[in-house]
Amino acid sequence: MLEEHERFMRRALELARRGEGYTRPNPLVGAVVVKGGKIVAEGYHARYGGPHAEAVALERAGKAAEGADLYVNLEPCAHWGKTPPCVDRIIAAGVKRVIIATRDPNPLVNGKGVERLRAAGIQVIEGVLEAEARELNEIFFHWIRTKRPFVSLKLAMSLDGKIATKTGDSRWITGPEARRRVHELRRRHAAVLVGVNTVIADDPELTVREVPGPQPLRIVLDSRGRIPPTAKVLEGVAPTLVATTAAMPPEVEEELRRQGAEVVRLPARDGRVDVGELLRWLGERGTDSILVEGGGEVAWSLISRGLVGKFYLFYGPLIIGGRDAVPAVGGEGFPDLVGCVRISISRVERLGRDLLITGYPAG
Amino acid sequence: MLEEHERFMRRALELARRGEGYTRPNPLVGAVVVKGGKIVAEGYHARYGGPHAEAVALERAGKAAEGADLYVNLEPCAHWGKTPPCVDRIIAAGVKRVIIATRDPNPLVNGKGVERLRAAGIQVIEGVLEAEARELNEIFFHWIRTKRPFVSLKLAMSLDGKIATKTGDSRWITGPEARRRVHELRRRHAAVLVGVNTVIADDPELTVREVPGPQPLRIVLDSRGRIPPTAKVLEGVAPTLVATTAAMPPEVEEELRRQGAEVVRLPARDGRVDVGELLRWLGERGTDSILVEGGGEVAWSLISRGLVGKFYLFYGPLIIGGRDAVPAVGGEGFPDLVGCVRISISRVERLGRDLLITGYPAG
Repeated sequence: MLEEHERFMRRALELARRGEGYTRPNPLVGAVVVKGGKIVAEGYHARYGGPHAEAVALERAGKAAEGADLYVNLEPCAHWGKTPPCVDRIIAAGVKRVIIATRDPNPLVNGKGVERLRAAGIQVIEGVLEAEARELNEIFFHWIRTKRPFVSLKLAMSLDGKIATKTGDSRWITGPEARRRVHELRRRHAAVLVGVNTVIADDPELTVREVPGPQPLRIVLDSRGRIPPTAKVLEGVAPTLVATTAAMPPEVEEELRRQGAEVVRLPARDGRVDVGELLRWLGERGTDSILVEGGGEVAWSLISRGLVGKFYLFYGPLIIGGRDAVPAVGGEGFPDLVGCVRISISRVERLGRDLLITGYPAG
Repeated sequence: MLEEHERFMRRALELARRGEGYTRPNPLVGAVVVKGGKIVAEGYHARYGGPHAEAVALERAGKAAEGADLYVNLEPCAHWGKTPPCVDRIIAAGVKRVIIATRDPNPLVNGKGVERLRAAGIQVIEGVLEAEARELNEIFFHWIRTKRPFVSLKLAMSLDGKIATKTGDSRWITGPEARRRVHELRRRHAAVLVGVNTVIADDPELTVREVPGPQPLRIVLDSRGRIPPTAKVLEGVAPTLVATTAAMPPEVEEELRRQGAEVVRLPARDGRVDVGELLRWLGERGTDSILVEGGGEVAWSLISRGLVGKFYLFYGPLIIGGRDAVPAVGGEGFPDLVGCVRISISRVERLGRDLLITGYPAG
C-alpha cells in the first residue's frame, strides 16, 4: 500500500518538476488522479498565475474523479489567490482520498487545506515522500518563511579544492555532464551571481543553454566598477544586474545602463558590496533564489556569514596542486576547525568522470 | 552458474584479506574447496613463509577434495618456493576443477600453473571476480613487476581541499570511521611516510592502533634534520627511518640513532630528499608499499613526478576557506590543466559523515 502511494507520489513529483523555472515564486506542484490502481489523469502547475496542478488534473479526469484518489505533493490551497481554492474543486469533484507529501508552509494555507478536506469527509494521508517533496520545493519553503532568496553555492573544483591553476587556467575542470547540470541549476534559480574577478578571468555568459528553460537574472558583484564593457555577461538574452557601491565611477554606471544592465548601489562592507544587503534588496523585489557561481572570494563572503542554504560541490577528476593555485573558497578563512561551516551531505553523484556532492549547512 | 562462482570466489577473497599485513611481499590468497554446492574446507595464506592457501584448504578437506572444485583468487604456483608447488598438491588431491580470479604475474608462475593443471586433466576457469582480485593484490602485482614500492597517497581534507586552517588547526577534519580506515590502510602497507613539517605540526604516532595488525615502518622525510627529539614518531612500538640529505648535522643523526631510529642520507633534489631515490632505495631492501600521509609539500613532490599509484582522498564535511589555509596539495602546482594529474575514480564511500574517494592515476 505504502509502495503504491510512493509510486503515484513519485509521478506527481516528476510532473511538478516540469514547471521548474516558470512557477516562481510559486511552488512546484504535480497532481495525479488514480482510480482502481490506475492513473486516470495528471496535471502540474506550469507557470506563475496559471491553474494549479489539482485543477488541471481534475479537469482532465472529469467524471472519473468521483470516488478517486488524488495524489499531490503539496497540500491543496484553501484560499483565493490568482485562482479559486483547490479544496473546493476537490470536494466538488467527489474525490474520496487525498494523499499529500507535505503541508504548505504558506500561513494562508498551512493545515487549513487538510482541515477543510477532512471536514468534507475526505480521507487525507500525509507525509508520503515528504523529504523528496521538501527538497523539490526548498526554495519556496524558504521564501515563504523569510522573504529572502534561497542561496545555493556552486563550486567546480579539482579533487584538491582548486578552481584554477596558479596561472589562472580553469577551463575545463569538470566535464560536459557536470556543465549540463549547472545549466539545470541555473534554470532552478531566479538569479545567478558571480564576482567581477570571475567575469574578468573567465568571461562567462551565465545563461541557460544546455537545457530548455527561462533565463535567470545575471548578477555581478562589482564594488568598484571594474567589469569590462565587452563582458559577455552584458550581452545576450538574459537581464543583468551589476551590484556595486558608492565607489563605482558615475561614468561606468552610465555606460552599463546604456548597455542595458541594471545598476544598484548598496552599502559596502570591508570595501566590497555587503552581500547581506544585496540579499535583503533582492528579497524586497521578489527574487526567491540565487545560484552563486563563484569565485573564491564571493564564496567566502557568503559562507563566512552563514548565508548559504545549499552547497553544490562539483569535483573534476584531477589534482592541480600548488600553494599559489586559486582555492575554491578564499578570503580570510576560518581560524579554527570549531568555527568552520559544517555540511550535512545529502547526496553524492557521479556525473561522467566528475563527482557532485550536495549538502546543507549542518544544524 | 557464474553467480555461484562469484559467491565462492568472494569468500576466497574474504579469506585472503585475513593475511593483510602479514604476507608481504607475498600476495594475499584465499582458497575454498566446494563439493555439491557446499564449502567443505577453507584456507588462506596467513604469513610470509607459511603454507599457501590451497595447501591449507586441501589439507583440511582431506578425502573430500576428491572430485571437488577449488576456488582460489590467484593462480596456484608451479614452482618450489619456501613450500612445494601447489599444483602438485592439487593434482594429488584429485580436484576436478580449479576456478581462479587472476593469473600470477610472477614470471616464475604466470600461466605455468594453469598449464600444469590443464595438462593433468583438471578443468580451469579463469577471470572470476578478476577486478576485485587485482585490487586486493595490487601491491604484489606492482612489486613483482617493478621491485619498487607501490605508493598510496592519503589526504584528509575539508570539502574545499584544505588540511589545516591558516592557524594550523587540523584536528580533526575527519571523524572516527575515517581514522579507523586510515589504520587499516597503514596495516595494508609496509611503510608509512610523512614530511617533517607534519611531524612538527601534528606530532603523529603513525602506528596501527585501531585495528589488529603488524606495525609499518615509519618514514620521516627530513632533509635538514629538523625533527624534534621528543617526536612521538621516534617512540613506541614501530621502527622508524629518517630519510635525510647531506644537510643533516652529524650530531642530529647521532641523536636519532641513539633513540633507535635508522637514518639514511640520500641525494637531494631542490634542497629536499629526492623521493625517487628514496623509492629506489626502499625497493632494494624489499619494501613493497608505502602509504604517504602528507603533508601538502610531500604530496606534491610525489604527485608532480607521477609516483603515486593510488589515491585515498578523505573529505571531512566542512569548509575551512582562506587564501592562507594549508592546501592538501602544495608545492609549485601544475601551471595548466592539460598537465595536471588526472584521476580515474574507482570508488566513492561514505564513512560516517565523511567521504572517501579512491582512485588511480588515469592512463
